[in-house]
Amino acid sequence: MSTTPAAAAPTRSFDRLWDDLLPVGRDAGTGGYRRYAWTPQDAQLREWFTGECASRGLDVVEDRAGNLWGWWGDPDAAVAAGRPGVVVGSHLDSVPDGGAYDGPLGVVSALAAVDALRAQGHEPAVPIGVACFGDEEGARFGIACAGSRLLTGQLTPDRALALRDADGVTMAQALDGAGRDPRHLGRDEEALARVGTFVELHVEQGRALADADRYDQTRSAVAVGSDIWPHGRWRLEVPGRADHAGTTRLDDRDDAMLTWAGLVLDVRRLAQQHGCVATNGKVRVEPGGVNAIPSRVTGWLDARGADEDAVRRLVDEIAARAAAVRTPMEQESWTPTTRFDTGLVAHLAGLLGDAPVLGTGAGHDAGILAQDGRRTAMLFVRNPTGTSHSPDEHAERDDCHAGVAALATVLADLTGAEA
Amino acid sequence: MSTTPAAAAPTRSFDRLWDDLLPVGRDAGTGGYRRYAWTPQDAQLREWFTGECASRGLDVVEDRAGNLWGWWGDPDAAVAAGRPGVVVGSHLDSVPDGGAYDGPLGVVSALAAVDALRAQGHEPAVPIGVACFGDEEGARFGIACAGSRLLTGQLTPDRALALRDADGVTMAQALDGAGRDPRHLGRDEEALARVGTFVELHVEQGRALADADRYDQTRSAVAVGSDIWPHGRWRLEVPGRADHAGTTRLDDRDDAMLTWAGLVLDVRRLAQQHGCVATNGKVRVEPGGVNAIPSRVTGWLDARGADEDAVRRLVDEIAARAAAVRTPMEQESWTPTTRFDTGLVAHLAGLLGDAPVLGTGAGHDAGILAQDGRRTAMLFVRNPTGTSHSPDEHAERDDCHAGVAALATVLADLTGAEA
Repeated sequence: MSTTPAAAAPTRSFDRLWDDLLPVGRDAGTGGYRRYAWTPQDAQLREWFTGECASRGLDVVEDRAGNLWGWWGDPDAAVAAGRPGVVVGSHLDSVPDGGAYDGPLGVVSALAAVDALRAQGHEPAVPIGVACFGDEEGARFGIACAGSRLLTGQLTPDRALALRDADGVTMAQALDGAGRDPRHLGRDEEALARVGTFVELHVEQGRALADADRYDQTRSAVAVGSDIWPHGRWRLEVPGRADHAGTTRLDDRDDAMLTWAGLVLDVRRLAQQHGCVATNGKVRVEPGGVNAIPSRVTGWLDARGADEDAVRRLVDEIAARAAAVRTPMEQESWTPTTRFDTGLVAHLAGLLGDAPVLGTGAGHDAGILAQDGRRTAMLFVRNPTGTSHSPDEHAERDDCHAGVAALATVLADLTGAEA
Repeated sequence: MSTTPAAAAPTRSFDRLWDDLLPVGRDAGTGGYRRYAWTPQDAQLREWFTGECASRGLDVVEDRAGNLWGWWGDPDAAVAAGRPGVVVGSHLDSVPDGGAYDGPLGVVSALAAVDALRAQGHEPAVPIGVACFGDEEGARFGIACAGSRLLTGQLTPDRALALRDADGVTMAQALDGAGRDPRHLGRDEEALARVGTFVELHVEQGRALADADRYDQTRSAVAVGSDIWPHGRWRLEVPGRADHAGTTRLDDRDDAMLTWAGLVLDVRRLAQQHGCVATNGKVRVEPGGVNAIPSRVTGWLDARGADEDAVRRLVDEIAARAAAVRTPMEQESWTPTTRFDTGLVAHLAGLLGDAPVLGTGAGHDAGILAQDGRRTAMLFVRNPTGTSHSPDEHAERDDCHAGVAALATVLADLTGAEA
């Protein structure tokens, strides 16, 4: 990519944006980020985004779902002309103690790519949008991609407004507290119509690019995303009987923690057998006293894989194991394989010098927009260890700059006069 | 015991006291009790106790640790005369979703026993005290028997005041909120000097009496407690590495939940081998997201047994297993075997018609007072299933009445003219 004009663009713009954003919502103790929807940290991030758009002359619009869009050019005139815009961007919120890169890399890279195009004197033939989606991680209200799901109507306003955070605050109350009118929430046809194409840049969550490097098969810092693996969440209610930890014989116990422990080991073994990934990341124990035998464990399962049939078989086997120990398992969500636009994916891979093409096990707003029929693809920036959703998440600065250059190349191509 | 005078006393007093107390702090959803130290529920329980003492002409004194004592007779005059009082009672607080019996049976039985003695025209030769200990379960601040440990100085005021509940409220703040002066806290020599003898009645937490019944070896509803098993609490810090649940290969993971699950199964297996009981009743997972690989599990171990050496061997083996998976294990508390006064135990067993004599795996305020050198024993009332610390905890009403009669017999004997 070092031969494209965009690669020559100054990287100072990325570095300045990155450094400004870095302290917002960072926990001094863990070094991780706590940027949750509709909190003061979220307001600060939105203010930062709006300010950066304004300083670039981009018109910022907030849609009915609370997502922000900064436009270079008139998106509605473009819709009227039958040539809707090209959008880049991602999200700024985080999981609990998440890393700095995740979504923010996509937002910062989008703004820096606009700067690169401006420096090149690029005149877009269709408007360019920079999107900042709200509540992608679902860390506060439990629904991932809440902003894009609300935008497309996949998540209904009634259900969303009734969601509660850990303190019992509803999303309706949180919106109200953040100065938004909860009655405004809902699918936003106008905002969607403006999106002709959406390309989301994201740090790679895994180490396919880093491993490719290791074996010297390719030296690309950027990949094109082909699809999002099928994935889902299930809730297991493990029964037990409350009793005193000091006075109840082992043989008389029905200890829910012991049953849960057996299931956790089963989940890993079965995931290995089926070539999928499965995780038990969250658990709640009742009554939860050190000297009380657990009467109930509520545990969660996250399962994904490249092959949809394999994931379904895995989940069925886990459910059978759970049933054998009197544990009902309820599906909380299920998303089949989401394929990005095949033509666009191939075009971008070629444009970026035969960039690797990768599927991903993580959900993204790009997946929600693809499910809604938008022409969508993703770019992934190399992650040296593959670690994400962790304070240790990292990308080399050179690779971030390569991501900006790739995004500028993509934008220049998709909004060129001949596009 | 049906031949003792006390057994003829009206049981209506017990029934009325019991029914009055039953609704306080009961959760409508679970049917369990949530009576935690220095909460509005706790204040209501203290008000109830004080009112019942006042209506019987007992003088209520609150000691420097917040425990309540209702006195029939002048305890200080008795101390001056070298014949300090005889105290009965227990506690009113609960574990999360605890049962109705636990400590409250001892407090209600103590008041009903006073009524029985009054009905018999008993004139105590030494004062009779009814004790209501505070914060026995340690449900809010994590230290069991906090009231009696503060009273005896086993728990220092500095340490106690800095303890925090799940909401981050310190005990100092909780005391202040309940209208107590935190500076007042500390060992209370005067209150301790008044206790010549302490007999705590408690529902049996186990089913030794019920099982004895089944095999028709004895038909006693009441046993005398001989000792409290050695017991302790340990905290395990299981390491892991935060990562994304969808994108990290199974082989690349360091999942703290998986390590914890293995340890839970080890704990049960080793406890069985050593003839002890061991429990993992509480756990905290970080970061705790459904789609985040656990980076740390903090889990607790409770271990006890009749044989002190066996418990120590068990704990050493668990610690070795934990160390093998890089998990440090820290002792939070350890209490060796506590023996009640051997002469008193034998005397009470004889007095109650050769009542069974039992050790117990549960800690009690009586144990703390025995450790402080008070002449102490316990009575246990039959529990048909052995279940305790649970909404299912139960004792038959006839057995409760037998407990009151036994306690009245004990008090009549220990405070008789010839005592």
